[in-house]
Amino acid sequence: MAPHSYLSHLECPRCGRTYDADRVTNTCAECGAPLLVRYDLQALGKRLKPADLAGRPATLWRYYELLPVRDPANVISLGEGMTPLWPARRLGEQVGLDDLWIKDEGLNPTGTFKARGAATGVSRARELGIQAVAMPTNGNAGGAWAAYCARAGIEIALCMPVDAPLLAQQEAHLVGARSYQVRGQITDAGKIIAAGAKKYGWFEAATLKEPYRIEGKKTMGLEIAEQFGWQLPGTILYPTGGGVGIIGIYKALLELEALGWVQRPFPRLVAVQAAGCAPIVAAYDAGKPDSVLWENAATVAQGIRVPKALGDFLVLEAVRATGGTCVAVDDAATMAAFEQVARREGAFICPEGAAAVAAAAQLRRTGFLRPDERVVVLNTGSGLKYPDLVHPQMPVLAIGAEI
Amino acid sequence: MAPHSYLSHLECPRCGRTYDADRVTNTCAECGAPLLVRYDLQALGKRLKPADLAGRPATLWRYYELLPVRDPANVISLGEGMTPLWPARRLGEQVGLDDLWIKDEGLNPTGTFKARGAATGVSRARELGIQAVAMPTNGNAGGAWAAYCARAGIEIALCMPVDAPLLAQQEAHLVGARSYQVRGQITDAGKIIAAGAKKYGWFEAATLKEPYRIEGKKTMGLEIAEQFGWQLPGTILYPTGGGVGIIGIYKALLELEALGWVQRPFPRLVAVQAAGCAPIVAAYDAGKPDSVLWENAATVAQGIRVPKALGDFLVLEAVRATGGTCVAVDDAATMAAFEQVARREGAFICPEGAAAVAAAAQLRRTGFLRPDERVVVLNTGSGLKYPDLVHPQMPVLAIGAEI
Repeated sequence: MAPHSYLSHLECPRCGRTYDADRVTNTCAECGAPLLVRYDLQALGKRLKPADLAGRPATLWRYYELLPVRDPANVISLGEGMTPLWPARRLGEQVGLDDLWIKDEGLNPTGTFKARGAATGVSRARELGIQAVAMPTNGNAGGAWAAYCARAGIEIALCMPVDAPLLAQQEAHLVGARSYQVRGQITDAGKIIAAGAKKYGWFEAATLKEPYRIEGKKTMGLEIAEQFGWQLPGTILYPTGGGVGIIGIYKALLELEALGWVQRPFPRLVAVQAAGCAPIVAAYDAGKPDSVLWENAATVAQGIRVPKALGDFLVLEAVRATGGTCVAVDDAATMAAFEQVARREGAFICPEGAAAVAAAAQLRRTGFLRPDERVVVLNTGSGLKYPDLVHPQMPVLAIGAEI
Repeated sequence: MAPHSYLSHLECPRCGRTYDADRVTNTCAECGAPLLVRYDLQALGKRLKPADLAGRPATLWRYYELLPVRDPANVISLGEGMTPLWPARRLGEQVGLDDLWIKDEGLNPTGTFKARGAATGVSRARELGIQAVAMPTNGNAGGAWAAYCARAGIEIALCMPVDAPLLAQQEAHLVGARSYQVRGQITDAGKIIAAGAKKYGWFEAATLKEPYRIEGKKTMGLEIAEQFGWQLPGTILYPTGGGVGIIGIYKALLELEALGWVQRPFPRLVAVQAAGCAPIVAAYDAGKPDSVLWENAATVAQGIRVPKALGDFLVLEAVRATGGTCVAVDDAATMAAFEQVARREGAFICPEGAAAVAAAAQLRRTGFLRPDERVVVLNTGSGLKYPDLVHPQMPVLAIGAEI
């Protein structure tokens, strides 16, 4: 009988060392780099065809052979994935892109793409017998992991900046997570969590310190390919903080290529950062393989306020290998795009997604994007998580008043 | 060539009069009742089989033959529908239901099931050449219609109670709707809108004053049937304000039966209301066919605060025809269920959905629900739209602190 998952082993993308996937592992013991999950793609390619996916559930678990959970009984799902990918014609008209699409990750449980990584990360944690996890967060990842841990019956400890979005704080609190705030950045939260994990024996699930969240996020790439009938778009723009989304999408492309389901050229991957926190853009512009910690990071797009990402070198590799680019967007452009998407398309997106929309307009103006190419912008979350950005004013009427 | 839609005509469920579907129509000119959309189910039943749906997009438009839009170019979609239906095992253990499921409508654009009705209503409005619509709303329907109208380039005027959820106000404002508040209930807003519609020539799209939103909402019933492999559950609980959801689900069951895709017995349909606004429960208990306006309506579940629903008689008919019941839940039970679902399942549901969960527990205790039957609770929206319900408290740490 065919296995449920074709999971093979873990591999260090920096030094090449391999690890047994069925033992609890964080990063590479040799060089400290994040580990990537490997599958037996040769065996799978012989067995599975794209058409086999047709009748499967509309969640990311439709790709179970390419996901790390061996026993379906361990899957913790709230229906994440298979989010809408819709044409943005009225927006495209304004920015000069004839074939512009938005993939709306706001339609995930907990309202952001973080649910994908939490679903695979928590499911695999359960499969490996982990009973308590801990992580620093800018808010949304913590909210998502807290939700999936609650459903799995796994304990979780979180630490987030004091200015993390209130709704993410509420999510974590509501589902019963052990939560802390720190008067600092996510990197400061990370140090507190790392120490706590050592002290209490919690499994440290910070971004890329555990191997399985990438697997959930790579399904964004699998879905884009499937939703376009396995014809890849020209460019994909991704708001980039920790960078796991873009790393995951690139990993998905490589795996689909190995299966023979898609062909090169790959979409150009564009990492979008905020002008107030753009360490990866700086590294890209300087031709460096890694980034340097960004001091005094500040942006309205809090989800991409990551001063130093553990996977920065993987992001830069994905961007360079696909002929993409890295681009910084200032908050004014982000907020203008936020309003533009709402007015033209009726979508209440998050500021991170708005930054990526602004970047698309910017790259059209520079000529990087051609007017007729197929462009996909990832909106990583729902605007409902950022209610402070909108200030409604409407006339208040008495009963029986006339308008 | 087979038509895209099998739309046939409109019909009054009270007096039986029929109407041309391709003319702009509100309610029955004869008796004032809401109109229902009819399809050529006989022709469709010969042509379409359940297996034909397999490769279609994961939105409600997968059922396009059973939807009223004749030309696919008129479809205004943000990816609504095909929401998750997940087993609530840990919650079920606590309430004594072994086969309890939640259908999570929070994973729709604008965060509630209202997106379904807005998608079909606005698409059909566009198809019929309507350029401006107006409606009263408790908040979420207005937010949804405003979003779809923005995407369609149709003008919209809204009026909502002053205490409508802030996020729904923000949605309406952000997408550019003409919005008003009234110091009163949705029924008061309705009078203001009806007068405004007459004055300015807007199409009145209040609940059940236009025939097409039911069509979007009935897809919840189509999806439940499809997601369970066309094996119907024992009972479906639905939080009921205007009642369109339950009317739509019943309509879906009848249509699927006519197609030969499902068989009786139908699920027992349960209308759940808040104890502070329970006109339909009162009518049900009194054996009446219609409800009486509920004075001083008040509940934490604002979405079901509807003192008098135009479709009350259709709700009561659906409940009685399926052997269901109507039940009122007090706000304390609703808030307890809200927290219970979060802690046990990791889901941040809306108070209306929580009322339905509380009702399930209540009906298990009375014996109406058997412990082993398959029970589906509709969670009609995301808890993200009700941030005021959660009050997080977490320790604030200094950089470098220890936990």
